[in-house]
Amino acid sequence: MRRFIYNQSENIGLPPGTVRETAASSRTVEITLTDYSLQHCHEKLVQHIEECLPFQQSPSVTWINLEGVNPSVIKSLNGHFQIHPLVSEDIMHSGQRPKMEVYDQYIFIVLKMIYFQDGTDEITDEQVSLILGPGYVMSFQEKPGDVFGPIRRRIREGKGRIRGEGADYLAYSLLDAIVDNYFLVLEKRGEDLERLEEGILDESGSGVLQDIHQFKKEIIYLRKQVWPLREVVSALQRSESSLITAPTQVYLRNVYDHTIQVIDSIESFRDMITGMHDIYLSSISNRLNEIMKMLTMFSAIFIPMTFLAGVYGMNFKYMPELNWRWGYFGVLGLMVGITVGMIMFFKNKKWL
Amino acid sequence: MRRFIYNQSENIGLPPGTVRETAASSRTVEITLTDYSLQHCHEKLVQHIEECLPFQQSPSVTWINLEGVNPSVIKSLNGHFQIHPLVSEDIMHSGQRPKMEVYDQYIFIVLKMIYFQDGTDEITDEQVSLILGPGYVMSFQEKPGDVFGPIRRRIREGKGRIRGEGADYLAYSLLDAIVDNYFLVLEKRGEDLERLEEGILDESGSGVLQDIHQFKKEIIYLRKQVWPLREVVSALQRSESSLITAPTQVYLRNVYDHTIQVIDSIESFRDMITGMHDIYLSSISNRLNEIMKMLTMFSAIFIPMTFLAGVYGMNFKYMPELNWRWGYFGVLGLMVGITVGMIMFFKNKKWL
Amino acid sequence: MRRFIYNQSENIGLPPGTVRETAASSRTVEITLTDYSLQHCHEKLVQHIEECLPFQQSPSVTWINLEGVNPSVIKSLNGHFQIHPLVSEDIMHSGQRPKMEVYDQYIFIVLKMIYFQDGTDEITDEQVSLILGPGYVMSFQEKPGDVFGPIRRRIREGKGRIRGEGADYLAYSLLDAIVDNYFLVLEKRGEDLERLEEGILDESGSGVLQDIHQFKKEIIYLRKQVWPLREVVSALQRSESSLITAPTQVYLRNVYDHTIQVIDSIESFRDMITGMHDIYLSSISNRLNEIMKMLTMFSAIFIPMTFLAGVYGMNFKYMPELNWRWGYFGVLGLMVGITVGMIMFFKNKKWL
Amino acid sequence: MRRFIYNQSENIGLPPGTVRETAASSRTVEITLTDYSLQHCHEKLVQHIEECLPFQQSPSVTWINLEGVNPSVIKSLNGHFQIHPLVSEDIMHSGQRPKMEVYDQYIFIVLKMIYFQDGTDEITDEQVSLILGPGYVMSFQEKPGDVFGPIRRRIREGKGRIRGEGADYLAYSLLDAIVDNYFLVLEKRGEDLERLEEGILDESGSGVLQDIHQFKKEIIYLRKQVWPLREVVSALQRSESSLITAPTQVYLRNVYDHTIQVIDSIESFRDMITGMHDIYLSSISNRLNEIMKMLTMFSAIFIPMTFLAGVYGMNFKYMPELNWRWGYFGVLGLMVGITVGMIMFFKNKKWL
Amino acid sequence: MRRFIYNQSENIGLPPGTVRETAASSRTVEITLTDYSLQHCHEKLVQHIEECLPFQQSPSVTWINLEGVNPSVIKSLNGHFQIHPLVSEDIMHSGQRPKMEVYDQYIFIVLKMIYFQDGTDEITDEQVSLILGPGYVMSFQEKPGDVFGPIRRRIREGKGRIRGEGADYLAYSLLDAIVDNYFLVLEKRGEDLERLEEGILDESGSGVLQDIHQFKKEIIYLRKQVWPLREVVSALQRSESSLITAPTQVYLRNVYDHTIQVIDSIESFRDMITGMHDIYLSSISNRLNEIMKMLTMFSAIFIPMTFLAGVYGMNFKYMPELNWRWGYFGVLGLMVGITVGMIMFFKNKKWL
Repeated sequence: MRRFIYNQSENIGLPPGTVRETAASSRTVEITLTDYSLQHCHEKLVQHIEECLPFQQSPSVTWINLEGVNPSVIKSLNGHFQIHPLVSEDIMHSGQRPKMEVYDQYIFIVLKMIYFQDGTDEITDEQVSLILGPGYVMSFQEKPGDVFGPIRRRIREGKGRIRGEGADYLAYSLLDAIVDNYFLVLEKRGEDLERLEEGILDESGSGVLQDIHQFKKEIIYLRKQVWPLREVVSALQRSESSLITAPTQVYLRNVYDHTIQVIDSIESFRDMITGMHDIYLSSISNRLNEIMKMLTMFSAIFIPMTFLAGVYGMNFKYMPELNWRWGYFGVLGLMVGITVGMIMFFKNKKWL
Repeated sequence: MRRFIYNQSENIGLPPGTVRETAASSRTVEITLTDYSLQHCHEKLVQHIEECLPFQQSPSVTWINLEGVNPSVIKSLNGHFQIHPLVSEDIMHSGQRPKMEVYDQYIFIVLKMIYFQDGTDEITDEQVSLILGPGYVMSFQEKPGDVFGPIRRRIREGKGRIRGEGADYLAYSLLDAIVDNYFLVLEKRGEDLERLEEGILDESGSGVLQDIHQFKKEIIYLRKQVWPLREVVSALQRSESSLITAPTQVYLRNVYDHTIQVIDSIESFRDMITGMHDIYLSSISNRLNEIMKMLTMFSAIFIPMTFLAGVYGMNFKYMPELNWRWGYFGVLGLMVGITVGMIMFFKNKKWL
Repeated sequence: MRRFIYNQSENIGLPPGTVRETAASSRTVEITLTDYSLQHCHEKLVQHIEECLPFQQSPSVTWINLEGVNPSVIKSLNGHFQIHPLVSEDIMHSGQRPKMEVYDQYIFIVLKMIYFQDGTDEITDEQVSLILGPGYVMSFQEKPGDVFGPIRRRIREGKGRIRGEGADYLAYSLLDAIVDNYFLVLEKRGEDLERLEEGILDESGSGVLQDIHQFKKEIIYLRKQVWPLREVVSALQRSESSLITAPTQVYLRNVYDHTIQVIDSIESFRDMITGMHDIYLSSISNRLNEIMKMLTMFSAIFIPMTFLAGVYGMNFKYMPELNWRWGYFGVLGLMVGITVGMIMFFKNKKWL
Repeated sequence: MRRFIYNQSENIGLPPGTVRETAASSRTVEITLTDYSLQHCHEKLVQHIEECLPFQQSPSVTWINLEGVNPSVIKSLNGHFQIHPLVSEDIMHSGQRPKMEVYDQYIFIVLKMIYFQDGTDEITDEQVSLILGPGYVMSFQEKPGDVFGPIRRRIREGKGRIRGEGADYLAYSLLDAIVDNYFLVLEKRGEDLERLEEGILDESGSGVLQDIHQFKKEIIYLRKQVWPLREVVSALQRSESSLITAPTQVYLRNVYDHTIQVIDSIESFRDMITGMHDIYLSSISNRLNEIMKMLTMFSAIFIPMTFLAGVYGMNFKYMPELNWRWGYFGVLGLMVGITVGMIMFFKNKKWL
Repeated sequence: MRRFIYNQSENIGLPPGTVRETAASSRTVEITLTDYSLQHCHEKLVQHIEECLPFQQSPSVTWINLEGVNPSVIKSLNGHFQIHPLVSEDIMHSGQRPKMEVYDQYIFIVLKMIYFQDGTDEITDEQVSLILGPGYVMSFQEKPGDVFGPIRRRIREGKGRIRGEGADYLAYSLLDAIVDNYFLVLEKRGEDLERLEEGILDESGSGVLQDIHQFKKEIIYLRKQVWPLREVVSALQRSESSLITAPTQVYLRNVYDHTIQVIDSIESFRDMITGMHDIYLSSISNRLNEIMKMLTMFSAIFIPMTFLAGVYGMNFKYMPELNWRWGYFGVLGLMVGITVGMIMFFKNKKWL
């Protein structure tokens, strides 16, 4: 549950824009540089951020991808690319809300990528920051991973339009890859929801309540990620920054549509799970009531018979029936009659 | 339930605008060409999309209708009509959210048509895409069907104003036909709702809970289709594109009104079904409570009598009442008295 | 319930603007013409719509009121007054949502009038269409009725300002009369709600659940009528059409205030009925629980006594108590003691 | 509950702006005139409205306060001050929604003042109308009362800035006095809510449900008054009328803040009472369930023992146990064992 | 709960802008003056407010911090700094809603700081008012406290950018410190929520209901504080006042983001606690139902056996079974059979 609060308290009292040394500071950062144009494509693993500078200034598109966040690397970027200290701070601290900020020289985007922890069924998120400047894109991933692999391959192999387009198209592609991942997660959850619904109809499913609770929590979590994501993409698309060209805006509109679809699905899930919770409660209660009703009626049938047996178990001296020849069998017959009568009464009342 | 997620995951990692070969690819596509003006009307089944080109360039209105989607046909359209690759992609993949996009040369519209699967009671949807260009309309249906039959007939027979109007009026007519189908579905569902309500009052209806759940799911589904539909029609009506003339805008306002009516009805249904669920739960619980109360009172009447019988069934040596002449009958009388007294007590308390 | 769907399906497949012959077609239409200015007032029953034309062109205000809708009459109006075919269609088909449309030559308004079916307690609605042109107003009522009677009287007797004002003031007066009827209906319902609330507190009221359901349905229905009504009046008031003069706009603001009051009342009713439903459910359940608790405690008191009687009803040979002189009375005393003890225990626990 | 509908029906059919003779017509009206500037302050009770006219035309600020509404007085005001007939109508009929209307010569404001009926705990409201013209303010109170007393005193004693400011400042002061009264009512209700909450935790409180219902109704009522009040103050503050000077607008902003605070408090109350209702229902149900569980377990303990006693009460000839020397005491011991065992079982299951 | 109403009633009837003598009036106020620029930093404790004046007029940044509110001090500030009387009033009375007001010479900000009462777990709030003028900031704290300590230290030690920036940056820093405190409180509450959730799953947790109620109340309270806070920061950021420079606006955007994160967290908490309440109620009711079901089935098994024992306890003369050699054991066997049969029946029905 901790992930429902943005983690800010550790920064309290520090001047804004402070890039603090954290536990993660000593982690190594893998920096990949990709420089390409229609004619060439150059990829290399970079040791020091300074190696990227000449590429950045060239007219070709430069993509600097950092896996892992490390204060010292961020700081040196800070210097070379004239990044605002608040941006550096945001990149370093993973508890950000998705947002877009237009600065004079670049656009800064923070996003949450969501995916399933390898092999497990649990949704994890990872903060991805993008800086789109003139002719370059910097992307910062919290953890190593290959979500941008297909894009790198497309650049390398010259598939699609990406090699012929500018840095804004690259930023769009990265954005698109992140949004696409939401669909993967939602599709999996859609199947889970279907299974859960069957479990409810089954009437056997214990643990259903727990599952519903889990699902609801996840949806609260996803909504919290997706609504600001939508704002980000919308702001990008409507942005008047010269960094984003008109043709790319058509593609951003497409990403925006996808985001809306993600939101639509999540809202539908929310309505579905609420509905399922209601149905579950109703059916649980119906079923229990049915049992209680059956048992109560069962008791009710025996009550007058037991009473009758009690009556003839009394020890009064003068009880004429006790001496009748067929008294016993008469009482037995009476009991059968009571039973039949009560069952018929219940049937008649539609209680049975 | 799967239909609650837009199907996007299969495209992940592909460059945008990719028209992939899918299972549906080998399906044949039926292309119908209709070219008309006030003076003439020409209909033919087309083998290759190229045959349409001369008609498109003529001043008369050209309607190219494709039933079934096939990547290669879409691709060749792509080339001949300068369609943006993202549009081709959207036409091919049926998981789109209703939307309208204005491009320089044409307006692209994606809609969901809903109808009942033949003979069944289940709502199906089908994606219909429209491209409105200068002097031509292209319509793409996922599956063969005759929803546009009446319009074709009106063109052929010259009924109404359609022959004298331009391509925008044709697009409006197709839109109108699609929206009208919603009314058919809603009217059917309105009757179902009425029947469901009677079932609830009947108090017999098992399966009611299941029906309510189904209804609620359907309404979630319909809302998800209709709200973006409203946006599409509203955007079309307010569009300043030169492709849509002022007189047609009056007609589009009419379609917009219809869409609002559809939304109104769906929202009313939603409120109704929620209300019915509440009433159902209340009445189920009332009824059960009534039964339990009756049975409990029934037991309560027998409890003191059984106790009394127990008392006189004890085997103490010195129990004077046992030897009384009328002891037995006295006790029987006492029991009758208790019964009468308790029933009167219950009546007095208004429990009975 | 059928009234929750706008009735559109019968028009499907027809060209827009079609005025179809319906069952109602042969119904006679009563056309009343009222022509007035500050100096004169002329009323007559008109046989053919053509008789109205000379009045319409005169500078005085002309009010043409049609009771009953008849396609052929509408069609001839259509011709003489240059009414858009979509307007004719809307007038003919009673399933419209309240709306206002500004055309070049006139303003078209569709409204729902609501009232109680004579003598009954059921709310009915009737579609009223108004066309406000330069110097004339046409009003179309679905059924004969006298809702506009007071206005006609005011014109005839020259009461108030109506004779000195233009056609827009007449249109305002008709609108005002329709909105006023909502108050009548709401006041009646307010009293019903009060009675219903007393019924709930009474705790006797069976049928309360049914009443609440009915009330809720009615409120859903009324909201659906009133919200678009508000839009209509608001659009009229803010309209920049030259057909509506500045002084009349002050009066329209007044009608708008009334509409808001109607909405306020309906929303309050909605909150009230929801609250009452909650209270009803709570009190029903409280009451039943009270009964069950009482009965269960009643049983609980007898259980140990019956057990005790059972013990001394056993037939063991060696049960010393059975032979004691005061054994029987001792057991009876013990039973009284148990009863008293348990009642005190229950009182102590505040269960009684 | 009647106060949830604005009372309009009595006016139906009358021309707008009609000031009808009502039951209240013969009531006397107390007219107080206060004329002041920095130098002088003149107060008097006025018999005929005409006496006010010379004061109104003087450059000093004139405040005409009417307690009680009387059609003939309103009518004569109507004439002397050129008030729009709709305004006169609104002043006369107390069922108005708070609103502000800007006319050419004056601003018209209708408000609801709320307060506790003397000595009782019930909220009453009273309609207060204000007309702010150049150099004068007219205020209309439905009933006599001294809510404006402190302001009169401030004028008389020259306390604060009021004597040095214009008519707009006076109007602000009256508004402020009315809004302040809301705080008095809310504070009282806040205390009631606190007491109610304690009652819920007490678990003794019968009548709590009734109180909650009452509270909810009151909140529905208050919200209905306060939201339009906010609109009024907001419109006044943003108004560009020359009647309101810039320094007064700063004060109006203050009143606006107060109104927002009132709304905040009411919304908080609403959330609180909803929460309390939930908690109340949960705790009532928890408590009852606890009782039922206890009683059911109590019964369950006796059931096998009673059965055992029944077994040895059977009259079979050959029941060897009956003749055993310690049979009786063995059975008694067995019974004790069963009791202990079951209690331990319940404890183990955490049911006890 | 009293804190849910803004405390205004004590001012009723007083002229606006009155700074009343209250109980707190005699409390001493600690005034700290900090004057700094890039070159110097001067701190001192001030006895009389007049000592600050020369600093205020110097070009360096002057920060006057008042701990404790005292009418006479506020009044003298009032005179020296030309503060509007309404501002003085707002500073004095702690029941303000967070707001920002732009005056000609300064910006006035009221905020709520929230923190945990020392050592306890209870959230307290304190009103903090800021006045940002040209070259100076005045801050008013209700109670002594060290929330601004880190900022004072940063100024003193020249850490960060604060010494080189203007008064607007100082105001931003104070704002930031206040918003940061919200994170501290939320993080603590996040952990509490987690513990509460475990308590619910534990099924042992009594007092859970009380905790949930408490939590809900706190969230209502926090929302009421945070939403206006957001408005304040947003208005500040978008403000066009010359008092706020462009670089500071970037920092204010950062504070705004934090505020949104706070709101996000609170809204998530709200959804979470609602979900947990639902789950709690469901699981409580499930658990109780399980117990009742078990006990009822337990009773149901004994009912026919007890009846059987009753039958053979009857004293009829002619009951052949009584004389059978194995009658007793046969009945015992029958009883075992009934028990086994019923258990199997229950298992079969999946009731067990």
